Amino acid sequence: MGDADNDGDIARTVAEEMYALDSAARGLGIVIDEVDNNSARVSMVVREDMLNSHRICHGGVMFTLADTAFAYACNSRNVSTLALSCSIDFVEAVALGEKLTAVAEKKIRKRRTGVYDVTVSNENGDTVAIFRGNSYQLKAESVPGLNDKLGLDKT
Amino acid sequence: MGDADNDGDIARTVAEEMYALDSAARGLGIVIDEVDNNSARVSMVVREDMLNSHRICHGGVMFTLADTAFAYACNSRNVSTLALSCSIDFVEAVALGEKLTAVAEKKIRKRRTGVYDVTVSNENGDTVAIFRGNSYQLKAESVPGLNDKLGLDKT
Amino acid sequence: MGDADNDGDIARTVAEEMYALDSAARGLGIVIDEVDNNSARVSMVVREDMLNSHRICHGGVMFTLADTAFAYACNSRNVSTLALSCSIDFVEAVALGEKLTAVAEKKIRKRRTGVYDVTVSNENGDTVAIFRGNSYQLKAESVPGLNDKLGLDKT
Amino acid sequence: MGDADNDGDIARTVAEEMYALDSAARGLGIVIDEVDNNSARVSMVVREDMLNSHRICHGGVMFTLADTAFAYACNSRNVSTLALSCSIDFVEAVALGEKLTAVAEKKIRKRRTGVYDVTVSNENGDTVAIFRGNSYQLKAESVPGLNDKLGLDKT
Repeated sequence: MGDADNDGDIARTVAEEMYALDSAARGLGIVIDEVDNNSARVSMVVREDMLNSHRICHGGVMFTLADTAFAYACNSRNVSTLALSCSIDFVEAVALGEKLTAVAEKKIRKRRTGVYDVTVSNENGDTVAIFRGNSYQLKAESVPGLNDKLGLDKT
Repeated sequence: MGDADNDGDIARTVAEEMYALDSAARGLGIVIDEVDNNSARVSMVVREDMLNSHRICHGGVMFTLADTAFAYACNSRNVSTLALSCSIDFVEAVALGEKLTAVAEKKIRKRRTGVYDVTVSNENGDTVAIFRGNSYQLKAESVPGLNDKLGLDKT
Repeated sequence: MGDADNDGDIARTVAEEMYALDSAARGLGIVIDEVDNNSARVSMVVREDMLNSHRICHGGVMFTLADTAFAYACNSRNVSTLALSCSIDFVEAVALGEKLTAVAEKKIRKRRTGVYDVTVSNENGDTVAIFRGNSYQLKAESVPGLNDKLGLDKT
Repeated sequence: MGDADNDGDIARTVAEEMYALDSAARGLGIVIDEVDNNSARVSMVVREDMLNSHRICHGGVMFTLADTAFAYACNSRNVSTLALSCSIDFVEAVALGEKLTAVAEKKIRKRRTGVYDVTVSNENGDTVAIFRGNSYQLKAESVPGLNDKLGLDKT
């Protein structure tokens, strides 16, 4: 695994290990484009099996993409972190074949809790949804055993 | 299609037509168990491809189940209705193989907007997530042309 | 202070002590009508100094009433509990002189966090707003020293 | 009233007229520091009658400040706009005497609905709360008759 000599390296190592186990993200074709300390960018192309009865991308799929960006952002230091609650505002309908990108950034961190904002955009750069996630840190590693390998302090 | 002589009949007819087009719901194995005027109950069994990196059901999948119940509830009178915004609180982790049920009910309707509450439960009846959706009615039918067949007024 | 021989007695004792310090609630004329374990009912009459530029009750005042019910409900066991986040849906405009009542009930409690739902109604029983609060328990008493007097376990 | 030759002039004129009627904002000592097209900055000093039972600023008062910034931002073009729903995340406790500033900016506008983000900060520039408001435009003027004076199109 080599040296994790900066935040980006740590975040990428955590993300790789998480992604290998993340059947849902892989099943939807979600790709982890970039991760760093408390941030992540992920993307996905809308498939036929993601369309709702109006034949546009199901809101739940857009939420899942945003929630995935949120998860990789808030676990980026290998502190196991879960979503307490999330909200999403839907802005634009998304069609079959469109590529969506979700960018998650930490807005607030306080005690064990945090708030992350995620923007979901299409290829034109139009915002199609905005998401806000409230996180809660557990006293555990996101990827058990990884802190030792990365030389990180115990959680 | 026959006579739609009450709210339940109308809601079921709308739901059948919507479901036939709802690739995302069908792809996740979501079943529409019951619909009525402004309410819906849907269910799903958690599959391997719904698990996240912690090997529990992805929050986005739970959201999608709840959002689907919300959609069938708020389109139950064939008035095309979309989600403006939604929020979800996650309560319990859900494991592979668990059957989840989401029940949506109208909480508020005002002008073109509404609020629906959805409770997601496991087979033990434990609440695993609660969802609140804000809806917005368009001037269109959920299933175009169905009002004529059902003898409903124009939207 | 006497014996606190049931949940209601404990909740009422905590509420009395809190209310004595709660300048904001008292300043708005909010009355604590009833408290019990994890629930509270509070009320208020809309005054001229609570009106916004549309000359209806300011949304912030309605929020404050709901938030107050939430606070008394989630501190009812003398475990110091704060609001992490709250959301409110506004349903009906409220006029000068109307009496509003907010009823808070626990929806979920998990680890140190909880979710409470609050309904704000007018005198006709119409819902004018719905509120959802996410709570977080600290390792402290709501009213320091009261656990000893009430014979409650340490937090 | 003179010429309203740009967005800022229009917004300031609307704000002045609104503020004259806004008993709640004035009662709390809220000052409208700056308004522009779809944005507003307002401030307030925390008084004794704004403290809750923990003797920190009541969450409802912080919400009211944020909601006021939101209201002036989304009415800045004299299109009567109300809050459908709002959410707030509380970050830091605020003490007696602290000066709070709330800055509202439009995040999204779609059909008649919009999303505005508000950040509430203390004098050190620390974020003490973040607020997100969902707005809904009515077919009416915020200040009736002002469009004519300002030379604005009918809503």
